[in-house]
Amino acid sequence: MVVCEMRENGYNMADITASGSEWPDDRLLSLMNINLPIVQAPMAGASGTAMAIAVCASGGLGSLPCAMLTPDQVKEQLQEVRAATSAPVNLNFFCHDTPRADLETDRRWRERIATYCAEFAVSPATPGAASGRRPFDDEMCAVVEALTPEVVSFHFGLPQEPLLERVRRSGCVILSSATTVAEARWLEARGCHAIIAQGCEAGGHRGMFLTEDVATQPGTMALVPQIADAVDVPVLAAGGIADARGIAAAFALGASGVQIGTAYLLTPEALISEVHRHALLSTSDDQTALTNVFSGRPARGIVNRLMRELGPMSEIAPAFPLAGAALAPLRTAGAGDFAPLWSGQAAALARPEGAGELTRQLALDARALMGSLGGGLQRQ
Amino acid sequence: MVVCEMRENGYNMADITASGSEWPDDRLLSLMNINLPIVQAPMAGASGTAMAIAVCASGGLGSLPCAMLTPDQVKEQLQEVRAATSAPVNLNFFCHDTPRADLETDRRWRERIATYCAEFAVSPATPGAASGRRPFDDEMCAVVEALTPEVVSFHFGLPQEPLLERVRRSGCVILSSATTVAEARWLEARGCHAIIAQGCEAGGHRGMFLTEDVATQPGTMALVPQIADAVDVPVLAAGGIADARGIAAAFALGASGVQIGTAYLLTPEALISEVHRHALLSTSDDQTALTNVFSGRPARGIVNRLMRELGPMSEIAPAFPLAGAALAPLRTAGAGDFAPLWSGQAAALARPEGAGELTRQLALDARALMGSLGGGLQRQ
Repeated sequence: MVVCEMRENGYNMADITASGSEWPDDRLLSLMNINLPIVQAPMAGASGTAMAIAVCASGGLGSLPCAMLTPDQVKEQLQEVRAATSAPVNLNFFCHDTPRADLETDRRWRERIATYCAEFAVSPATPGAASGRRPFDDEMCAVVEALTPEVVSFHFGLPQEPLLERVRRSGCVILSSATTVAEARWLEARGCHAIIAQGCEAGGHRGMFLTEDVATQPGTMALVPQIADAVDVPVLAAGGIADARGIAAAFALGASGVQIGTAYLLTPEALISEVHRHALLSTSDDQTALTNVFSGRPARGIVNRLMRELGPMSEIAPAFPLAGAALAPLRTAGAGDFAPLWSGQAAALARPEGAGELTRQLALDARALMGSLGGGLQRQ
Repeated sequence: MVVCEMRENGYNMADITASGSEWPDDRLLSLMNINLPIVQAPMAGASGTAMAIAVCASGGLGSLPCAMLTPDQVKEQLQEVRAATSAPVNLNFFCHDTPRADLETDRRWRERIATYCAEFAVSPATPGAASGRRPFDDEMCAVVEALTPEVVSFHFGLPQEPLLERVRRSGCVILSSATTVAEARWLEARGCHAIIAQGCEAGGHRGMFLTEDVATQPGTMALVPQIADAVDVPVLAAGGIADARGIAAAFALGASGVQIGTAYLLTPEALISEVHRHALLSTSDDQTALTNVFSGRPARGIVNRLMRELGPMSEIAPAFPLAGAALAPLRTAGAGDFAPLWSGQAAALARPEGAGELTRQLALDARALMGSLGGGLQRQ
């Protein structure tokens, strides 16, 4: 038996850096005009301009989550990024349908939450309080048309065709997330330029829009190659990727790049609470679950009291995004017991460092690892 | 931007074959004395001697599932494999605790199932009918001691220490499945020589034994690197791997090999029903779920009527393996509506061909792919 030496130290790091974009598949790099095939996941409420700027400047694609911003805030934030870097940037929008108020469901939910409010002696939220998540609409679309970000990504499907057509005409590269092959085909048929294959490991809200069944959601390992087979556009792998191994694996599976979220939550640029940061630093592989109790839609977070006691999936949670409003008074109660601690399943792989340095290091290490995988062949 | 050419056709297939074991990590090959880092998953009721022989002869590790066999049958089957090939072989055993009969739970379950029996005009099963799954015990251990298979793998943890010590003294390489990092550490501490990291994508029974919570089970992409970081022994990746891309990804994630199940279910050597085979050939990525309705333990199968109507996870299912007995009369009813259609999430990636040829081709293609991933580096 011929023993194959690991070649982790068999190449020159400087060469890799200098050679820039020599990835096994550079379709995504060409499409977006970026140098590193890493998209920083837009994380509404958890990332802002500082993170986007750092990632853009490093050669990856920085993203601004816009679902919790007003159109004016979107404009300001994008202008701030543009002032700091000329690199392409991604604006991310939700495109859920605004649910009709269901008074009975809302009443039952508030009643259940009120028991916690009583426990912590806080006033329950005013009925009808704002949910804080805004779908992509005419006003937001006007901002996109005015400022033409290089990339626009959507979550929960795509906006209605007239809005989408306006984004298309603005020349933006359009992305959206698919959690199944059927969703990927649907997105490609409507003109997405690349598709984010969001495996079940991913933290935060699942992009699912053709199904509501979390039990059948595929993991990244199974999803990425099946989507790569099903569509012609480039595929970004997402879910469970927090170090160079995941990136190399994504390319092996047929992806042209990755979208990474949780690993960026540990950077100093992340806008998360100390409680959330601490939870991420001390969590392990088996402590997250998909839950709808924080917003009404399935999202992965570290299991806490609210998830344990009402879910993780609750049948009485109001439709997205209404479930969240009733929880607002409890956000800071119970040391993270009632606030979402969004996380994917690979938080333990993340290393806290600056978002720009993290992006560069991930890319460097992933390319090195991909080189070492071919070691056996190279020696012939 | 320097465009990196894909190197899929840039190496010589004959060279790869001739060079045999030049994998980026050959610890598993050395440990088991096999040539290809592919373990055929033991699939109780779905694979037998023909599949094990074909895989062993190809250079992978063939497995005999023993959980549904008597000790005499195990002996006969192993002797049959030994007569056909001198390559190492794996005997797989379940090591669940035999549950105490819970008459009330059993009654409720049978009552629920009886409605289906009435619909299909079949007689309900006799109360107390055999469950068909036997845990590893003194008698089975004696067979192992007598015939000393090169590898013994366990599912649902490990047997009690006195039995395990006898297996150890027989010189067998010992494997077991971990579905979390905690389980992997537990198995390594008890002397497992390698650990199967079973991601949530995997078909059939989950090996989980320190937790019963399916909601927190990690996917392969997240699980493999975290287990690889946590243990010193070699790791086999399992779950969602059905083609060369998955194998290459597994090595990228830090695995020393893979265990593949579903892809082998489509080989002619598989002992599955035509209904099951047809379901596998026509399923897609989003049609499986974890269910306990067929046996009492969570296992992944293609969603069918029983799973839809009683589950997929049911709180009234009796403990493993008792839930299965009541279903026996319904097995052939309703074209697969009441029999388990075990499948992982990547059945659509599998190509029906002989088990030996499949093993060789997977290995060949995986090595080629791993070589191509380093393409950018090789060109410098």
